[in-house]
Amino acid sequence: MRIGLNLKGLAYENVPVELRWKDSDHETDAFRALNPQTNVPVLEVGNEQLQQSLAILEYLDRIQPAPPLVPADALGRARAWSIALHVACEIQSLNNLRVQRYLINELKLPDTVLSPWQLHWITVGFDAIEQQLASSSYTGTYCHGNTPTIADCCLVPQVYNARRPVVGADMARWPTIARIYDTCMQHPAFDAAQPKNQPGFESPALH
Amino acid sequence: MRIGLNLKGLAYENVPVELRWKDSDHETDAFRALNPQTNVPVLEVGNEQLQQSLAILEYLDRIQPAPPLVPADALGRARAWSIALHVACEIQSLNNLRVQRYLINELKLPDTVLSPWQLHWITVGFDAIEQQLASSSYTGTYCHGNTPTIADCCLVPQVYNARRPVVGADMARWPTIARIYDTCMQHPAFDAAQPKNQPGFESPALH
Repeated sequence: MRIGLNLKGLAYENVPVELRWKDSDHETDAFRALNPQTNVPVLEVGNEQLQQSLAILEYLDRIQPAPPLVPADALGRARAWSIALHVACEIQSLNNLRVQRYLINELKLPDTVLSPWQLHWITVGFDAIEQQLASSSYTGTYCHGNTPTIADCCLVPQVYNARRPVVGADMARWPTIARIYDTCMQHPAFDAAQPKNQPGFESPALH
Repeated sequence: MRIGLNLKGLAYENVPVELRWKDSDHETDAFRALNPQTNVPVLEVGNEQLQQSLAILEYLDRIQPAPPLVPADALGRARAWSIALHVACEIQSLNNLRVQRYLINELKLPDTVLSPWQLHWITVGFDAIEQQLASSSYTGTYCHGNTPTIADCCLVPQVYNARRPVVGADMARWPTIARIYDTCMQHPAFDAAQPKNQPGFESPALH
């Protein structure tokens, strides 16, 4: 979401929400009242609270069409969306904290399952996306063509995640994804969205 | 996806893909060649293969704008998308077969964890969506207003899933979702998309 806001050049106030193993802000009653889905991020627009990163990116593209975050043609749009959704639905959703908590707290699995769990879903997901990117002439310097789209907005944070020591993914397995990630990191909108460039950033939690 | 195609009145050929515990069609080499993401559904349009249900619904809305699957206003669009994405990312992605397989085959958990696992993510997800629907004046006979949107296209199959004996969710906990589901099932586009009305339908697999 931050990447999208930056790409659009839209001003926003950044309110960090603590995501830690226990007693996270995002499961407090106050945050639940703001956002019944109890997920981050939330974009507050006047009295409305928008939820789900991709819904927010879609909204940003409506209120501020330039630069576009989705290709103009219907097939291109579907392709960019499918990459973004693959990251959101097949990787991010499986590796988030609430799932990790369930594995440990409810299924009573040892902490040692968490790194392989995360690496597994990143590997399955990136294998698929790498093949999709490498086999298509629509892939450019970015996931779709030569400007950033929602696909890049979703893929880049996941590569950041994958490279954390706790996951330890070796990006050499996915050369096209790695190349696009490097391209994105040269872009000021992506760079400014990095966790280390956010207010209140501390070194990542263990999980 | 079937619901969206039916709502748009678009003709399509339905090719069933076997989703079973082992050796599913969708993980064969032939299906992987067609769809690197190895997920269902896939929509073939000429030589292009479109993946991810929501990307396909977005595509259908572009090529056949009437009736619209998303509200016209930016905030309404974001709301309908957020409900659809919540189902796709926070429920469906966690309960699909590949995750269930990982729990059993890799984490060596007993089969008995599968029903509680599915019910847990349905409960967490539906609790959030119920609150979002019940607390908003945008909710109508359908999730957003009085015509079906992508939110309903995603929610209905998940309610179908939740009601299967293997999951055993009691929909009384989510009266707004249950009411919208009942409304949808009166709609011919939703009824025609039911699994039992598909070619090659057999009674559901155990998992």
